[in-house]
Parts: sequence; structure tokens; C-alpha cells
Amino acid sequence: MRSRVNTGIDGLNEMLGGGIPTGNQVIIAGGPGTGKTLLCLEFLYKNALAGEKCILFSLEEDSKMILANMKEAYEQYTEIDRLISERKFIIKGTDQASSLIQKDKKGNIFTFTTTIADIESTILEEGATRVAIDSVSVMKLFVKDPFEYRSVSTTLVTMLRKQNVTSLLTMEIDTPEKEKLIFEPEFFIYDGIIVMYLSGAAEENRVPTVEIIKMRGTKHSFSTVPYEITPSGIGLLLIPHRE
Amino acid sequence: MRSRVNTGIDGLNEMLGGGIPTGNQVIIAGGPGTGKTLLCLEFLYKNALAGEKCILFSLEEDSKMILANMKEAYEQYTEIDRLISERKFIIKGTDQASSLIQKDKKGNIFTFTTTIADIESTILEEGATRVAIDSVSVMKLFVKDPFEYRSVSTTLVTMLRKQNVTSLLTMEIDTPEKEKLIFEPEFFIYDGIIVMYLSGAAEENRVPTVEIIKMRGTKHSFSTVPYEITPSGIGLLLIPHRE
Amino acid sequence: MRSRVNTGIDGLNEMLGGGIPTGNQVIIAGGPGTGKTLLCLEFLYKNALAGEKCILFSLEEDSKMILANMKEAYEQYTEIDRLISERKFIIKGTDQASSLIQKDKKGNIFTFTTTIADIESTILEEGATRVAIDSVSVMKLFVKDPFEYRSVSTTLVTMLRKQNVTSLLTMEIDTPEKEKLIFEPEFFIYDGIIVMYLSGAAEENRVPTVEIIKMRGTKHSFSTVPYEITPSGIGLLLIPHRE
Amino acid sequence: MRSRVNTGIDGLNEMLGGGIPTGNQVIIAGGPGTGKTLLCLEFLYKNALAGEKCILFSLEEDSKMILANMKEAYEQYTEIDRLISERKFIIKGTDQASSLIQKDKKGNIFTFTTTIADIESTILEEGATRVAIDSVSVMKLFVKDPFEYRSVSTTLVTMLRKQNVTSLLTMEIDTPEKEKLIFEPEFFIYDGIIVMYLSGAAEENRVPTVEIIKMRGTKHSFSTVPYEITPSGIGLLLIPHRE
Amino acid sequence: MRSRVNTGIDGLNEMLGGGIPTGNQVIIAGGPGTGKTLLCLEFLYKNALAGEKCILFSLEEDSKMILANMKEAYEQYTEIDRLISERKFIIKGTDQASSLIQKDKKGNIFTFTTTIADIESTILEEGATRVAIDSVSVMKLFVKDPFEYRSVSTTLVTMLRKQNVTSLLTMEIDTPEKEKLIFEPEFFIYDGIIVMYLSGAAEENRVPTVEIIKMRGTKHSFSTVPYEITPSGIGLLLIPHRE
Amino acid sequence: MRSRVNTGIDGLNEMLGGGIPTGNQVIIAGGPGTGKTLLCLEFLYKNALAGEKCILFSLEEDSKMILANMKEAYEQYTEIDRLISERKFIIKGTDQASSLIQKDKKGNIFTFTTTIADIESTILEEGATRVAIDSVSVMKLFVKDPFEYRSVSTTLVTMLRKQNVTSLLTMEIDTPEKEKLIFEPEFFIYDGIIVMYLSGAAEENRVPTVEIIKMRGTKHSFSTVPYEITPSGIGLLLIPHRE
Repeated sequence: MRSRVNTGIDGLNEMLGGGIPTGNQVIIAGGPGTGKTLLCLEFLYKNALAGEKCILFSLEEDSKMILANMKEAYEQYTEIDRLISERKFIIKGTDQASSLIQKDKKGNIFTFTTTIADIESTILEEGATRVAIDSVSVMKLFVKDPFEYRSVSTTLVTMLRKQNVTSLLTMEIDTPEKEKLIFEPEFFIYDGIIVMYLSGAAEENRVPTVEIIKMRGTKHSFSTVPYEITPSGIGLLLIPHRE
Repeated sequence: MRSRVNTGIDGLNEMLGGGIPTGNQVIIAGGPGTGKTLLCLEFLYKNALAGEKCILFSLEEDSKMILANMKEAYEQYTEIDRLISERKFIIKGTDQASSLIQKDKKGNIFTFTTTIADIESTILEEGATRVAIDSVSVMKLFVKDPFEYRSVSTTLVTMLRKQNVTSLLTMEIDTPEKEKLIFEPEFFIYDGIIVMYLSGAAEENRVPTVEIIKMRGTKHSFSTVPYEITPSGIGLLLIPHRE
Repeated sequence: MRSRVNTGIDGLNEMLGGGIPTGNQVIIAGGPGTGKTLLCLEFLYKNALAGEKCILFSLEEDSKMILANMKEAYEQYTEIDRLISERKFIIKGTDQASSLIQKDKKGNIFTFTTTIADIESTILEEGATRVAIDSVSVMKLFVKDPFEYRSVSTTLVTMLRKQNVTSLLTMEIDTPEKEKLIFEPEFFIYDGIIVMYLSGAAEENRVPTVEIIKMRGTKHSFSTVPYEITPSGIGLLLIPHRE
Repeated sequence: MRSRVNTGIDGLNEMLGGGIPTGNQVIIAGGPGTGKTLLCLEFLYKNALAGEKCILFSLEEDSKMILANMKEAYEQYTEIDRLISERKFIIKGTDQASSLIQKDKKGNIFTFTTTIADIESTILEEGATRVAIDSVSVMKLFVKDPFEYRSVSTTLVTMLRKQNVTSLLTMEIDTPEKEKLIFEPEFFIYDGIIVMYLSGAAEENRVPTVEIIKMRGTKHSFSTVPYEITPSGIGLLLIPHRE
Repeated sequence: MRSRVNTGIDGLNEMLGGGIPTGNQVIIAGGPGTGKTLLCLEFLYKNALAGEKCILFSLEEDSKMILANMKEAYEQYTEIDRLISERKFIIKGTDQASSLIQKDKKGNIFTFTTTIADIESTILEEGATRVAIDSVSVMKLFVKDPFEYRSVSTTLVTMLRKQNVTSLLTMEIDTPEKEKLIFEPEFFIYDGIIVMYLSGAAEENRVPTVEIIKMRGTKHSFSTVPYEITPSGIGLLLIPHRE
Repeated sequence: MRSRVNTGIDGLNEMLGGGIPTGNQVIIAGGPGTGKTLLCLEFLYKNALAGEKCILFSLEEDSKMILANMKEAYEQYTEIDRLISERKFIIKGTDQASSLIQKDKKGNIFTFTTTIADIESTILEEGATRVAIDSVSVMKLFVKDPFEYRSVSTTLVTMLRKQNVTSLLTMEIDTPEKEKLIFEPEFFIYDGIIVMYLSGAAEENRVPTVEIIKMRGTKHSFSTVPYEITPSGIGLLLIPHRE
């Protein structure tokens, strides 16, 4: 049996039949405000506590702000300073990634080749086994040509596979509703797809829910499960019977 | 705990668990007539009363007209003349922003680089801590290339973060209905997203409602809350139990 | 309090809390057959009767035909010949606007710069205070580049504001139904937006209704109100309680 | 009062408050199979019987085939041979219109300037007062550039107005359903718009219905009225009370 | 009365008031799996049995495979070998049509001019009176420019009219559902349009139905009629009362 | 009667009236996570057991990972190692397909001509009779021009027909719902189309279902049948009465 990686969330592990198969590159898709970044933090924190070497590559936020928000919102991260000082939990934000956004010679197309090379060399140097990239949508935003974007995505996934890490990659989608979900054409290059929704009709409160669309190497639940974001992290409200 | 900034509206502060985390750059999205400009005015007026240095950059209206409409519609702004004369509340309208709309050398593409530089130098000169930009959609309207627009948006947000202000940035959306909301691809670069709706089926009156989609650095309500625009400002009709 | 301008229709004035704030540039949006032209005629006729100098710029119809249709359809315009002879009510149709449609040097792009200049000089010469332009969609139809169109729209609105007139500008929309309304991206440059619908499912008669989406400088009703076109003009069937 | 032209169909005249105001250029829009051509034939035949000079310009069919189909389907056209021999009813089909489809010098763009000139000279030579053009969609099909198409449409309407004829112009739309109707951006250049639907859900028979969307120079019904195509022509099944 | 051609299916003849008017060029539109090819085979087989000279031009399949599938699926074609040997029923598949797919000088645009010329010379040589082309969508698939495609379609229809054959031309549509049917802009150049649906909601079986949208030269049913594909061909399940 | 090929799944054979007609090239369309790859594995494994020579060409995954996932998820593949060592079941993954992704001389367009040639020579060398290609969407992802893509698809299908194999070709679609299925324009070049759905409204679990849209050379069920993925493979939950 392929070994499993803890997602950091008990109910999600249960839905996955034990966790993410080691070595999978998994998309966490969702609209703004669904908690994609928090899911990455949970995943890395729990794995770091368990002794894995974990790195968050944030293409959106400053590493100090990420740490501040993390401490602010969740009481549970009591070991975070220790893990950071022991280099078990490494945050690479927009402040470190000096090479993140680069124009090519024409001046108005961004290239991410150097970014991917930087990520690779950091993984190698640190010997990381668990990685989160938040978010790959930055590439979509700045790469004009969809074929260039798909080529960059393929390069990124191939690199992560070669480094043999287990990764979460967040991706923005343009709707909060399950009914309107449209699959991106490149979704099939990833080993797993987990979607986070914020459903709610006109006069209703939105309810966050999570669904596993695909996970190579394991059977998984087909349920859409509500969750809540509590001071001790993401909690699935209903642990469905594993199907 | 990260400090909070008063939105100017009690119910909205409540929904945000105390206010906007200081230093956040927040989108106020909504269709025409939803009260986005009024929300900016409330935010700046209340913060100016509390001693903060506040600037409204209007890319749409003349500063004298803004002031006239403000006095006309809302009885509550009794201190506005004093705050303006003390330079606590500064209105920069289309009359001052001589550099707002500029054609590049090809003659038909607008550039906003000078506009952003002007906004930055005004913030610096005045020592502003609270800023509203009404609206960033002017940039979308006149920047042909969506990648140029995203680049300009990123430049604007990066500048505001560097200046360490707390900002509201209004953005037009093409539908008044919550059900039809589609997230813009660049939404994730902002720290918060608040949406104002005007819902109402064919034979019904429209009801204005407000929803917080995302706010970095705090937990927030997932409710969609009706509000009304009264002579004393925006009032949320239902203060939901904080979730 | 900002002074108000009579829309020509009692119920609509009521919905606007007294009328259109003087100096506003207001879009009248609607599909074909909704009565946008009639609303302009009512607005100008009633203002001309009250002593204002009024001009209709029709970019669609011949001035003689407009006058003939006006007399044919509505018994109420009993003073129209006097007002025209006193130059209180001026109709500029496609017959006079020799400069309306112009090709640029490439031969297939229309320019409206001269048209706007003609409108401006007519307003100046006549000392007009109330203006209707029917319809600005002619510009949309013939200006290929949406950015050129938005630039022309901005130029027109800026000119009208400088001339300090109160204006109605009609605009075609592609659906008769309130549920399908999509806001045009340039809507926010106008001071007010009033939409006229012709709603009706497959087997029903269409019912004309009117809604105020936005009006700077006043509070307004959020109702969608049915109206009928009678020999004495547009009558709102339900005068809603002002909200 | 502006004089009226018989549409050839009693119920439709009733809906129009007596008929089409003389000199109007009216679009007959509808999907395939709705009876647009038949409506043109009824209009021209009844007007020819009443002594008007009538011409059908068919841009789709051969004149002999039109006449054969006309005789085949409808018993009522008993005077058609006489009217044709007296040149009261003239059919110009694709066989005569040698100049109809022309490539420009680039070889793959069609031009309709000669077609419009041919139509004009035929109207002039014959002294026609009633005209039908079936269908203007041929122009849309072969004119690549929508701006070229709108320019051609404007040229055609302006020519017809100058010749002072009353015209029906058929136009194909892409849906048979009233609920899905989207107005074409150039609809407002025409004096009237009549739409023919073929409504019917999945398991239902389609029912043909007709609706007047707009008619300059008259008030009209807002009803959508079922009709049937009988051996004696188009019959409206319900003569609605005129509103 | 124009003479009629047997469609090969009794119920469909009934719906058409006797059959297809001789000389009509008729589109058979439908999604994959609706039985368009079978309808062509029925049409040609029954007409060949009645002594007409019939040709199937398949732009999709090999002639031997067509014959094998024909014999496999339908017991009824007992005379097919005789009709083929007597050259009453001719199948031209992708194996014979050596000239079918051709690149122009630029290397990546397909031209169908030679294909149409080949079809014409085969019709002439064989003296064919009934023709089926399966499917014209091959042209849509490989002709990049929609205007080129429309030009090719017009050329094909004009050629078939000149040869005075009665034809069925199959066309793929992108939806199986009647509710989603959108008319193609070139539909009006054909004399008739028959649509085959495969309707069925999420948990239901699909039901094949057929509808006549348009047929020049005859009145026809407006019903949507279920059919089934049996060993003895296509059977309409409900012969509707002719309207 | 044309001979039939076992799909590997009893219920699906039943729906097909015995299996896939030998020599058909069949699309397996579905969103991510529907089990398309598993269906290919079942098809090849069962045919290899029956003595056929079977090859899986994976354009997405490494052959070792495919084998590992196969063993992990399904207990039933007890003979797989023997079949592989006897070269009855051959897996060609992204590790072997060195020629898979190739840039042309312009550097940013991928060509699949060499890939197709490699597939052809492998089929020839091994004498394969059953083939699965997982997935052809890789070609869609990297071929910019839809006409180039269609040309490549046609080349692939023509090659497979010439080699006389029976094939499954998986294709990603952008929606999991039957109601939203839109047929791709090139669907008709394939001999069969089977669609796998994952239906489920907002608060429901998704249910996997399968539907045969088209299959040349046999009659088939029009049912949409739920299935489940069990340790012993794909099981149809309802064997529908064959229609």
C-alpha cells in the first residue's frame, strides 16, 4: 500500500481513506475567502510537528504578515516559533522571492522559469518533503498566453514530482458555488483536486464546504462536507461514512 | 492581536470581529447605486473624527461636487468643514488629479503610472493613515490589456502596503445580484473583499445587502446582511450573531 | 439642498425625492420600444413650458419626423408649436447634424469628436439648460474600439458637465428583462441611471416598468414601477411610498 | 394623423392601431420556419390588390420557386398572376439579382453596395410604394466586419427612407423562444420591430406567436399573440383588446 | 401541387403533408448518436427501391464499413446488394473520395472546392435524383474562417439546386436538447430543417425525438415526436394529427 | 454480425448489446475523478487475460506510478505481473514516451506527429489488438490552433483504423454534470462516445453514472446508469433492460 500523508485535518484524512498518497501533487481550488491558505498552513504545521521538513512558498504575501495572521487567527499554533527556528517550518514570502515576477525581453510578459528554479533549489537545499505553493493563480494572472501558462504548470508539476515531495497548490476559481464549477483544462495533470466552496443563495449565509474531486492512488469519499474555521483550525462538521 | 480600523459602520465592524485589520487593502465591490462611495465617506469621516489623517482619491468626480452631495444627502457630517480645514479629511477629485488620464505615445492607451505616483506622494506629504480610492474601475475602463491592468493593480496595492495605510478601493461589478457574482481573477491580491448587492426579482423592490467574502487577519461573518441608507449613514438592519 | 429638475413625469419626480439634482448627466437605458424617446420629449417639453431652454439632439431620426410622431401620438403637446417658434424647444435631428457620421482617414472608423463639438456649440449659442441626446448608442454602434467608445463617452459627459446643463442620454440595452440586466462598464461615469424594462414571460403581455438604479445627490426609491404610455404621456401606475 | 399601411393581416393591423405608419422601415425578426416570407407575401399581395406598386426583393430564393411555393401553399392568391402581369406585384429573386453577391478586391469580403443601388433603381423605375426585402440576414452572413454590416444596414434604411416606401425587412434570429430574445445592437435604426416566435418546451408542440416590440408613430399592443398559418394565410388566433 | 419525395419514414412523410417537396435541400441536424446517418440510409434505400438513382456521399466513413454497419443493424435492407450491383444505390465513402481533404498552399487551411466538384460530376455521371451528404460538419470542422465556410455551404447548395436533386445533408449540433437549440446563421439558405434530439434529464433515459423546424413548399407539423430505432428502421412512436 | 470486444465491465457490455464492435475507436469522455483511466485498465486487463495483445499509452503518468496505483486500488489485478512479463499487457507512460512533447521550430507550439508515429510503430512491433490512449486531452492542452488539434485527432483515428485495433481514448470534459454536456465539434469522427458523469447538487454526494451517446455498428441502451468503483473494479449498479 502507498504510504499516506496527513492533510492536517482529521475529517479530510478520513475522506481520503487515510490521507494523501505520498508523492501526490494536489490542487486546492476555491474562491477568495474559502480558507485555502489556512489549509496549507495546517498541512505544513502538522507535518512539521511530525518531523517532516516543510516549506510554504507564498507568491501573494509577505512572510512576516503570514506569520502575524497565523498567530492572530489560530490559538493552536503554539509550537510555530520553535518549528521556524529549527527550520522545520519555512515560510518563503514575496519579500524573499526576489525573482518572483519577471518581465521577459518584450517587457510585458512575465516569466516564471526562474521562480520555479528558485523553488526547486530551496527544496533541495532544505531537503523538504512537504510543500505548499500559495497560489499558482499568480502565474495564471500574469502569463498572457494560456499555452505558456500550461507549459509553466507542467514544468512546475514535473519538478515537484522529481523532487519527490508531497504538495498542495492553491488555485483561485471564479465562483463560490458547487453548481457553477467548471474544470480547468489542465486539471488532469495534477494527482489530486480538492475544491472548497462557499455556497449560499441570495438571502442565506454562506456555508463553507469541501469536496474531493479526484485523488490518484486511493479511493475517496464523493461527499461535499461542510466545515468551519475555528480557533483550533479547520473542522469538518460531518465526518461522512467512508464510501 | 492585530489592531483594527473602524469601518465607520457599527454592524460592519461587528461582522468583522472588531473592524478591518490595520494595514489591509480592501476591495468594496458593487454595481452602480449600491453606496460604495458613501461607505468610503463614512470610513474616512469616522476615522478623521478619531484623529486619523484621511484622504479620498476620487477618479470619477469633482471634489466640490463630492462635498456638495455629501452635505446634501447626510445630515450627520456636521464636522466635515472643520475636518477639511484642519486637513484631517482631504478630498482629491478629478479637478486636482491633473495627471489622471494620460495617453501613451501610441495615443490610445491610458497609463496610470503617474496617477499612482501622485497618490503615493500625496499620502507621504500628508502623512495619511486611511485612504479610499473611488474607483479602481476607472483603470479597468481605460487600460486595454488585462495584463497591463493587473500589473497596474499590483503596483497600486504594493505601493499602499509600503505606505502602511489602511485602504478601501471601490470596484464596479456588472451585476447587482449575489447569485451572479463572478470573482475577478485579480481579487486574491487584495487583503479583503466586501461586496454590496442590490437584489430584487422582476416585480420586487431592490434590497441593498452587504457581504464579507474575505478578510485576511480576522475571522468574519458569512452572512449577507440587508442595510439601508439613512440620513445618518449606512445602517445594517440585522446585526448577525458573530460566527 | 441641491435644486431639482422636473423629469416631466410626476411619479418619477416622486421616486427621485423631488426630481433630478440639477447638473446631473443621466442615462435612460432600455430596449427598443420602451419609450426612452418619449421620456426625453416629456422632460424637455415640461421644462420648456417652465421657461427653460431645451434641446433634443436626435442621432437617429429626422427632426420633422420626430415632430410628426410627437403630435400624432400625444394630444398633450398643445404648446409645442409655440415653444418651437420661441426657440424654447429645439429639435436637432439627423437632417441638421451634417457632421454626425464621419469616417476617419482609414475610411471605416467613425469619429464623433466633431459631433460633440457641434452639440457643445449649439448648447452655447442657444444658452440651453436642459438637453437630451437620443441615443448615445449610435456612438457604440459605429465606434469599433470599446476604448475609443469609452473615451468618446467621457468626452461627452465632461463637456455636458462643463456646460452645466441637466441631461438625459438614452442608451439601448440588449434585453427587455430586469433579471438579465448587465451593467455596462462605463455606467459609473454618469451621475444617474434610470432603466426602462418591458417584462413578460412567453405567454404574457409585456409590462413596461421603470427603475432608478443610481442618482447622485439624492436618495431615491428602490422600486420597479409599472408605467403606461397614454395620450397624455407616461404615467406611473403605482406611486410608491418614498423610501 | 399619419396614414397607415395594411400589413395584410387583420389582427396585426388591429394590434398596430390601424396598420404600419406610412413610411416606416420595419424589421420582421424570427427563426427559420416562423413564416417571415409569408408575412411579406401577404403584405405585398394585399397592398397590390389595393392598387399599390409592390416589390419583393428575395436575396435567398429563385423568383420562379417563390411563385410556385406561393401558389402551392395558399389557395387565397387567386389574383397573383394578374397582379404580376400588370406589374403590380414584382418578384426579384436570386435569378435576376445578378449583382447580389460580389467579392471585393481582396476576394473574400462581400459587398452589398451594388445590391442596394440595384434595389434603389428598381424602386425608382417601377415607382414602388411597398417593398419587402427577404432577408437582410444574407448581408450579415457574408459581411465579415460587424461595423461594415451596420454601415450597410444604415445605407439601406436611409435609401428606403429617401424613396419614401413602406418596407418589411426580414431578419433571422438564432432562437425560436421569446425568453431568449436578445436585441441586435442596430435594431434602433429601424422604425419598427415585429418578432415571430416558435415557442415550445421539450415535449410540447411549437406554437407560433407574434409580438410588436416597437413601432414609431403609433401606440401598439404589448401582447404576444398566437397565430396559425392556414390555406388562406396567417391568422391571429386571438385579437387582443387594443391597449 | 409540387410533387413529394418519400423520406423513407412513414410518420415523417405524414408530418410533412406527404413528403419532402421535390428539389428541396434539407438539413438533418442533431447531436452524435441521434440516427442522422440511418435517416439518410432509409431515405436513399426506399427511393432506390422505388427506382430513383441514389447516392450517399459520406465524408466520415469508409464505404465498406457503412455497408457492414447497415447490414448489421437493420434486417430490413434485404435488397441492398441488388440495388448496389444495379447502381441504384451508390455509396461514396472516404476511401473513394481521394480528393476530400485538401490543404491549400498555406498548408493548414482545407479547401472543399474540389470535393464539391467531385460530388457534382458524380451526380451528373450517375444521373442521380436523390442525394445524401453525411456530414457537412466535416467542412465546418476544417474550414477555419466562418465566412469561407458559409461561402462553401452556399456553393454546395447552389450546385445541388442546379443539379435538381432532392437532398438530405446531415449536420452535427453541440447539444442533444431541444431547449438549448441555437440556429446556425446559415440555416436559412436551406429549404428545410429537421432536427433530431436526444432529450433526458440527469437521472432519466434519453428519448430520441424529431422535429420539423422549416420546410419550404409545404405546411408541416409543429410537433416534436418521439421515435425509436428498430431492426426495421426508424419508427415514429406517435403519428400526430396533421396540423 | 460484427464481432464484439469485451469492455471489461459486464453491465457496459450488456448496454452495448454484447460489447464494442471490433475495430471501433471509442471516446471515453468525463471530468477528473470519474474513473476514465480505471475503465481503460479494466478493458485492457480483461482482454489481455483473454489472450489479446494490449497496450496502454499514458500521456499523463509515469508507467511505474500507474502500476503502483493499479495494484494499490484494486485487489482484482492478480495476474497483472504475469501479463506484463509475458508482454500481453504493456504500459507506455511518460517515462518511455521520450518523443511525447515536442516544440516545433517556433518554440511554443507542440507537435504530436512524432507521438502518433511512435504509437503506430509500437502497435506494429507488438502486434497489439487492443489499445487505450490516456488522454487525448493532452493534445488539446498543448496544440494552440483548434484546426491543428482536429487535424492531429483525425490523423490519430485514421492511424488506429489502419492498424485495425479496437481502442478507448479518454478525453477530459469541463463539467461533471449530464445537463451541461456540450458535444465537441470533432466528436463525430469517432465510432463511439461513452460519457462518465459525477452528478450531484450543492448539498448532495456526487454519484458516478455512465451513458453511451453513440456506438457505430450496434444498437445500445439510452440509459444513464450509476456505477461504483469497488476493489474488484467498476460495477454498474443497475443493469438496465436492453432497449
